[in-house]
Amino acid sequence: MRITEEQRTEVDAVRAERAETRRAVVPALEEILYEPLPVLDHGFVRVVDYMGDDAAIVQAARVSYGHGTKKSRDDAGLINYLLRNWHTSPFEMCEIKLHVKLPIFVARQWIRHRTANVNEYSARYSILDREFYVPSPEHLASQSASNRQGRAEPLAGTEAERVFQILREDAEQAYTHYEELLNETADGRVLDSSRVGLARELARMNLPVSFYTQWYWKTDLHNFMHFIRLRADAHAQYEIRAYADLLADILRRWVPLTYEAFTTYRAGGAHLSEKALDIVRRLLSGESVEQQSSGISPREWRELMQVLGR
Amino acid sequence: MRITEEQRTEVDAVRAERAETRRAVVPALEEILYEPLPVLDHGFVRVVDYMGDDAAIVQAARVSYGHGTKKSRDDAGLINYLLRNWHTSPFEMCEIKLHVKLPIFVARQWIRHRTANVNEYSARYSILDREFYVPSPEHLASQSASNRQGRAEPLAGTEAERVFQILREDAEQAYTHYEELLNETADGRVLDSSRVGLARELARMNLPVSFYTQWYWKTDLHNFMHFIRLRADAHAQYEIRAYADLLADILRRWVPLTYEAFTTYRAGGAHLSEKALDIVRRLLSGESVEQQSSGISPREWRELMQVLGR
Amino acid sequence: MRITEEQRTEVDAVRAERAETRRAVVPALEEILYEPLPVLDHGFVRVVDYMGDDAAIVQAARVSYGHGTKKSRDDAGLINYLLRNWHTSPFEMCEIKLHVKLPIFVARQWIRHRTANVNEYSARYSILDREFYVPSPEHLASQSASNRQGRAEPLAGTEAERVFQILREDAEQAYTHYEELLNETADGRVLDSSRVGLARELARMNLPVSFYTQWYWKTDLHNFMHFIRLRADAHAQYEIRAYADLLADILRRWVPLTYEAFTTYRAGGAHLSEKALDIVRRLLSGESVEQQSSGISPREWRELMQVLGR
Amino acid sequence: MRITEEQRTEVDAVRAERAETRRAVVPALEEILYEPLPVLDHGFVRVVDYMGDDAAIVQAARVSYGHGTKKSRDDAGLINYLLRNWHTSPFEMCEIKLHVKLPIFVARQWIRHRTANVNEYSARYSILDREFYVPSPEHLASQSASNRQGRAEPLAGTEAERVFQILREDAEQAYTHYEELLNETADGRVLDSSRVGLARELARMNLPVSFYTQWYWKTDLHNFMHFIRLRADAHAQYEIRAYADLLADILRRWVPLTYEAFTTYRAGGAHLSEKALDIVRRLLSGESVEQQSSGISPREWRELMQVLGR
Repeated sequence: MRITEEQRTEVDAVRAERAETRRAVVPALEEILYEPLPVLDHGFVRVVDYMGDDAAIVQAARVSYGHGTKKSRDDAGLINYLLRNWHTSPFEMCEIKLHVKLPIFVARQWIRHRTANVNEYSARYSILDREFYVPSPEHLASQSASNRQGRAEPLAGTEAERVFQILREDAEQAYTHYEELLNETADGRVLDSSRVGLARELARMNLPVSFYTQWYWKTDLHNFMHFIRLRADAHAQYEIRAYADLLADILRRWVPLTYEAFTTYRAGGAHLSEKALDIVRRLLSGESVEQQSSGISPREWRELMQVLGR
Repeated sequence: MRITEEQRTEVDAVRAERAETRRAVVPALEEILYEPLPVLDHGFVRVVDYMGDDAAIVQAARVSYGHGTKKSRDDAGLINYLLRNWHTSPFEMCEIKLHVKLPIFVARQWIRHRTANVNEYSARYSILDREFYVPSPEHLASQSASNRQGRAEPLAGTEAERVFQILREDAEQAYTHYEELLNETADGRVLDSSRVGLARELARMNLPVSFYTQWYWKTDLHNFMHFIRLRADAHAQYEIRAYADLLADILRRWVPLTYEAFTTYRAGGAHLSEKALDIVRRLLSGESVEQQSSGISPREWRELMQVLGR
Repeated sequence: MRITEEQRTEVDAVRAERAETRRAVVPALEEILYEPLPVLDHGFVRVVDYMGDDAAIVQAARVSYGHGTKKSRDDAGLINYLLRNWHTSPFEMCEIKLHVKLPIFVARQWIRHRTANVNEYSARYSILDREFYVPSPEHLASQSASNRQGRAEPLAGTEAERVFQILREDAEQAYTHYEELLNETADGRVLDSSRVGLARELARMNLPVSFYTQWYWKTDLHNFMHFIRLRADAHAQYEIRAYADLLADILRRWVPLTYEAFTTYRAGGAHLSEKALDIVRRLLSGESVEQQSSGISPREWRELMQVLGR
Repeated sequence: MRITEEQRTEVDAVRAERAETRRAVVPALEEILYEPLPVLDHGFVRVVDYMGDDAAIVQAARVSYGHGTKKSRDDAGLINYLLRNWHTSPFEMCEIKLHVKLPIFVARQWIRHRTANVNEYSARYSILDREFYVPSPEHLASQSASNRQGRAEPLAGTEAERVFQILREDAEQAYTHYEELLNETADGRVLDSSRVGLARELARMNLPVSFYTQWYWKTDLHNFMHFIRLRADAHAQYEIRAYADLLADILRRWVPLTYEAFTTYRAGGAHLSEKALDIVRRLLSGESVEQQSSGISPREWRELMQVLGR
């Protein structure tokens, strides 16, 4: 992660300010407020604002005049109940706003979550920085032979070296040409005063999707958890998973009771189909069940046995 | 508005609490936080939480590391620009949460604004209070003869008296029967121990839509303004307009610069059609234009002349 | 269900029309198109339009130039896979539009599903009919003692008789007074030419939520299934479940392969929490597990044992 | 635009099919159904499905049992009224589904319209084609000096030649390296059997945002018009405007009455602020108004004078 001195000064200045409020305050989240938390080689996540806490969920569920319940133990019980029974609306009553720096190809997956508000840095208006993502060696995965959208072992040796060379050199060259097209650098220096320069909105076309963009992203707690569940999942691409894992950590700081319930009832749970449940019932009654006669496909059988720890 | 002693104590308790935060704080809004602001005969609006201020809009529009611009004058300029050019996403970066008590027929109009989060008091689970809306004499409007969904002058004399009698007596009787159906009162007293009582989710069927319900309602600043623009409009039913007018007042406290821009560019402006613009151009060039040859209908003509102050 | 002669004629007229199209056509759905299908005592659901079929899901998932796969067997396999792995976007590519007549209290639950388009009959503009819902004797449920939002056995004897009397008489009286307030009947007859009548938008206040309203409602296949899953569930109120059950039948006609997958992987399945899965694993390994030492509450234990058929 | 022979055959096959339906059919739209309509150098738009027509808007607005009104003249009147008064929900009752091929940087603007359903071709799963956008000479715009996100005159001479060279050569090289990273071509040929190849989800990182992607995109008529209004606007980037212009043409075929109303009341109209209206009123009353004393900024003044044709 690279933060300029000027940015560091701005962050320190907002972090230094304090004011009194009647609203719910979460000290563990205040602690990291505005601070850029590094992800991947140049990315970060900054929590820039939040609204509500665990008690606010209870307060909304009860449409109450004061705070939630009297004891945090009762709050936990109700939060567990709500999450377990998919009562989603009380969780929509909390909100979080992040400033995220992320590669364009990750941004393209992220934006698919529509129930959120987004304000992206505009490359029609401004000039992007020379910052692009290159995987670390342990994440330079080869293509999976069995799963068309999966990864296998990391590449190594000369193949890995060549991959790094291509990714770095093509990105560097694309950026150098981007400046040439613009006839201007990111800090406003004109390269050749005899030329006019290509429009910014066109010059950016030359940059690969490994380049970093940034945005303000705001969503409610329900959709925040939904994002984490889908993107911290083993089937998600590693690069977005790295962000989702950090978001899960922010979730834990923000609403610890909800985080507990989320871990138990969502992240750690599993959905069993009608046929899978039937197999479980037969197994529990002592019957021996084989995939062939189970009524489910080999792939589903494999997944079920994994869930059942067999 | 009727607040029980217990509710008053709860409100006072949350209002008394203070904590330190690094987040943006709006003193003018903190002042009224949690306080029920009366609307109609038994309704209220309570601001129970908020996120962001005028500077947060600028901060999001710039995807900045610190606060918005240096001077509030620059903030105002940018906010005007954004609103004038329908750049809505920065306004979505602020959020407000209200506790609203409102008649069911108003709630049915309100809920049509889908981009919001709602948690309503459940009459499947709980017993509603004996609270229903009866218009004040000056709002006991007669049906408009020219506009099928409009109002004309207030009713008066014996017709008004009879209307008040029907509205009050039918509502009172419906509630008394509601308690009889439930075989229970709102404060938990059983009426007849030899009976079991109808399910709550069925008994509520007997109540008219003049009865009050309540909910937590949360939306972002862009949709908050959209709601106000549509519902504080002269064509909206008076009863929801009463709420929208109060919301406009909350808007002014919360984000004064945005409120100014909203008043100038939205609430006070008008949308002219292609044909209307053409008429204005002809009038400005000194031409005399009549409705018959204007190409627009008598109704549109009337509306246009009104907008043009003729 | 009551359909006027005029309405019947209109329905027959649109049903009689035929035209040629290049779009996907579903004969089983065409069969019932426009036809009112009765629900409750006066309600109905009419399918008024649809877009896409099972093949359209496959087509979208593959971003293909032609139709889905070659064989319907492959379509079924892909649809199962998509549904099982919560790939929701291909199911959003089909759309259905209904005309629904339903009691206001059911409409208030229904509208909570926000990802849909709605056009409701306006009681500000028009006069409602004298049609209200009264449960049939087997659905005149008493209040559950154990579950605050649940039902127990139907009421019987004199208590039932009194309930029917209240529900019917109050609704009839409310409607008679509604006409008096309006000084007009639904078919446009003025009651007393010496009076002006209360505005329609106010007079409707007198009607209880048992009265029927109607709307056009349009949603995509993903949200259609989500609605059915939540509202055809045993925890949903019977009156909305009656509609959801009919919607499930429409789903089966419209997209039979998706309906199969939906039944297996959604409606008939169950979500097990991390702790529940752990208990299943221990049981399968022959361990004896008791609720007390299971780490889950008595209620969750009861639900789990039910799911496991023990 | 490049369509493979196989794709052409698929398109012709679906275009050849016909079936009978009771639904509304729009012959002018059926005519172009499934046919790729070219945009930019390699892009296209294909209408793959639609639901509803002008009459369906009227039908929904009236919550009717049959079709809309008796005469198309009445339909036009009601549609004008609805659009003029921002009654958006009846327009949400029609739906359209497109297959679009577009450069990634255009897709990134397009996706900001959240009220739509999207299914994108996955570069995690599949290999992209060697297709990228290069502007035609008349669209090779230079950067505007006055407007940071605007364009000025096209580049010419050696500067233009150099720009073309960079855009083409960098894209070609990026694609050649993409194949080398994958160790595979789009048609499945392995390049070097001694290597394993980088995962697809990583290799795509090397491609610039000028490369084409494709998706199925579905939205309702209200949001379709909103998209066209924002993106066919003079302030939109030319490349997305090219798509929006084509969409406007599709709109005209699909719902001609709505298209007329849209042209008059939206696309061709203008929103005047409170202050702008005041200036118009003063001008109409013969007063002479100067920018300095007008109360609006020079920029707003300029825009207003342009709207007023002065």
